[in-house]
Amino acid sequence: MFNKILIANRGEIALRIIRSCKEMGVKTVAVYSTADKDSLHVRFADEAVCIGPAPSKDSYLNIPRIIAAAEITNADAIHPGYGFLSENAEFSKICDEYKIKFIGASADMINRMGDKATAKETMKKAGVPTIPGSEGLIDNVVQGQKLAKEIGYPVILKATAGGGGRGMRIVKDESGFQKAWDDARMESKAAFGNDGMYLEKYIEEPRHIEIQIIGDKNGKACHLSERDCSIQRRHQKLVEETPSPFITEELREAMGKAAIKGAEAIKYEGAGTIEFLVDKHRNFYFMEMNTRIQVEHPITEEVTDFDLIKEQIKVAAGENISGRNYYPKLYAMECRINAEDPANGFRPSPGKIQNLHMPGGRGVRVDSHVYAGYVIPPNYDSMIAKLIVSGQSREEVIVRMKRALEEFVIDGVKTTIPFHIALLNDPQFNAGNFTTKFLEDFDFSQIK
Amino acid sequence: MFNKILIANRGEIALRIIRSCKEMGVKTVAVYSTADKDSLHVRFADEAVCIGPAPSKDSYLNIPRIIAAAEITNADAIHPGYGFLSENAEFSKICDEYKIKFIGASADMINRMGDKATAKETMKKAGVPTIPGSEGLIDNVVQGQKLAKEIGYPVILKATAGGGGRGMRIVKDESGFQKAWDDARMESKAAFGNDGMYLEKYIEEPRHIEIQIIGDKNGKACHLSERDCSIQRRHQKLVEETPSPFITEELREAMGKAAIKGAEAIKYEGAGTIEFLVDKHRNFYFMEMNTRIQVEHPITEEVTDFDLIKEQIKVAAGENISGRNYYPKLYAMECRINAEDPANGFRPSPGKIQNLHMPGGRGVRVDSHVYAGYVIPPNYDSMIAKLIVSGQSREEVIVRMKRALEEFVIDGVKTTIPFHIALLNDPQFNAGNFTTKFLEDFDFSQIK
Repeated sequence: MFNKILIANRGEIALRIIRSCKEMGVKTVAVYSTADKDSLHVRFADEAVCIGPAPSKDSYLNIPRIIAAAEITNADAIHPGYGFLSENAEFSKICDEYKIKFIGASADMINRMGDKATAKETMKKAGVPTIPGSEGLIDNVVQGQKLAKEIGYPVILKATAGGGGRGMRIVKDESGFQKAWDDARMESKAAFGNDGMYLEKYIEEPRHIEIQIIGDKNGKACHLSERDCSIQRRHQKLVEETPSPFITEELREAMGKAAIKGAEAIKYEGAGTIEFLVDKHRNFYFMEMNTRIQVEHPITEEVTDFDLIKEQIKVAAGENISGRNYYPKLYAMECRINAEDPANGFRPSPGKIQNLHMPGGRGVRVDSHVYAGYVIPPNYDSMIAKLIVSGQSREEVIVRMKRALEEFVIDGVKTTIPFHIALLNDPQFNAGNFTTKFLEDFDFSQIK
Repeated sequence: MFNKILIANRGEIALRIIRSCKEMGVKTVAVYSTADKDSLHVRFADEAVCIGPAPSKDSYLNIPRIIAAAEITNADAIHPGYGFLSENAEFSKICDEYKIKFIGASADMINRMGDKATAKETMKKAGVPTIPGSEGLIDNVVQGQKLAKEIGYPVILKATAGGGGRGMRIVKDESGFQKAWDDARMESKAAFGNDGMYLEKYIEEPRHIEIQIIGDKNGKACHLSERDCSIQRRHQKLVEETPSPFITEELREAMGKAAIKGAEAIKYEGAGTIEFLVDKHRNFYFMEMNTRIQVEHPITEEVTDFDLIKEQIKVAAGENISGRNYYPKLYAMECRINAEDPANGFRPSPGKIQNLHMPGGRGVRVDSHVYAGYVIPPNYDSMIAKLIVSGQSREEVIVRMKRALEEFVIDGVKTTIPFHIALLNDPQFNAGNFTTKFLEDFDFSQIK
């Protein structure tokens, strides 16, 4: 087992990792930007090293400074959390070179899964269902139009380097192809410095359902069931739940098998997530693989009793996995509490938290790095807490989540709490009738 | 199901009951003393009625005022929580007369179990092992000495109306009998207005292990396994855990069966607890039955997935129980966080909570009615939070509890947190080697 782990991240996930390390008797090193000097992850780690000012490129994305912090503190492993350097192949490689264990995927794995076209091809070869589309990048608009006709409209154009919805266009018929193509490329070039595009069949009434997997050094993998992350706004997840209200036992079994097939085909080591789109006929298609811990991992923990951070650490330290697949018996849901104003287009609302009261009681878990008096810096993403609720039925989870949201007091900044309450009161949501487009038609004006 | 429940209590348990009611869609009425007007249970209930000033006899123990509050608000049931009127036979009877369902035991049941001598006799007849001792009250010192000789010293003298250790004396040999008898009677008379005494075999190296039971209106009962509450200071529980590190599968089975036998013999309805003393040879003896919810009920909830408050409400509304006994697969522990100074004889430390930060993350539950800025009134018991931790092994629970205690920030008053940290670092506690006398030899000077 490792002696000391450096956590190359901030916010709730840094604290989350520190908690598991403490419970494993592993020492921790926090790194922080000057903007985060009053953060709880700095306070609760055994050691803390300042790695620069707020722009992430000068701190949380600055590889030399993070490696230097690990060297100075004698850390023998680095946990990257999610975001930042968690899927950076160069960082994974440099950790290897410095003989610091990167608790995440190898550089090769990150490269293979990070490029979406390559990832899809790899999964297709492994026998995982994929969305019909271009084999790799499209060279030009004529080739794209020809392929779209073969597959049948609607199709979707996607940037190979994309993420968060950028560089993405739905094309309903041939007449709109040229403009969509130009727009998507321009956007992708601007955002990612890369205008490589691919094309896919556009899935109607899609659900975003992902399978959590864990693989070990022997190339064996198991799955920990699914998470339904269909409640998204502009491709940003806001609420996740498990089990999915849409999934049948047969579909879970099939998706789990496909995910294991995919993970074992690439000898995936560690915790990973295979994201699928599921259409209204319950066909499922590989979307992408995340070679890191997900924001929404706690709902899986609540229903499986696995501690996924501990599992990551154990696998990185060379332990084998249990090999047991998991079929859920409990229910869990997560609401992302962001410092944003949901009544005003989710505009970020940084600032000082004046009063803070977190909900408690049975079946309620809060993962958060904030406290009363904490100043939310404007430099980072706006998530300030994850409210995770578990229970014996989806109905129980929903009523418990509502009462927990009603107990939650965060004064001084606007938060997404009123949005979540409105969502949980929505009859369609309660009935489990929603797709990734649900929020496009949601009446945000009802939010007080 | 009830439409509206009045909660005749305060503090964390009032909030706890409100939470379950909310999740069941049942409306709630809080009652409060003027000293509690800023309490969270007042804020989170649907309605709140002030029932008088701080001395409990003028508010939380004042039956006419509570009944009036229920009448005014049209509550169809009253949940008494623990303490206060929860085991008051007259209150239970009056609720009946007013056709308000008392969510607890009938007056007859409270009377039978509330008088310790009667309770013991009842259980003995039902075939539950009891401690050898006097059949009912002892008339005089001569009779007591004769019986003590028959049973064999050491023996213990106990007040029939006693509780919290008052009116209790251990007698090592005949020479000490007279003084112990006089002292115990005087103390009991002063505290309870009743000097009736009984006598028992004194159990050496005792553990306090209790069985949670639920009975329904058909006279059927099931058990939800045990709680080990041996960590006590002056007969006040400080830490509880389940499963007990001392119990074997056979003993659990036997104690569970005995508890069910006892509960069914009296056709017990609702949630109750049968407390046993277990000696070093794993003999167990009925101690008393609590005809109400216990402070430490959440650890049972964490390992069984039952919500005991909801179960109480359901049984009171006439539902049958599942009949399934429970054998634990998970582990849970509760630390009572009191506003007391453990480095100074646990002296109460009321006052204003300046800063408050509650621990979070996986396996951590906090049941508390306090918040930053809350003024702990000096009028009530000093418990301000229950920290409940669950996990897959006793070891995991202990390390998780330690990290949660270390995260817990309560500024402005002294708390028992440093005591709990010291306890969790104790090798004997870690080994599970402790009796109810453990804290008598504990080095409190190490507490910072």
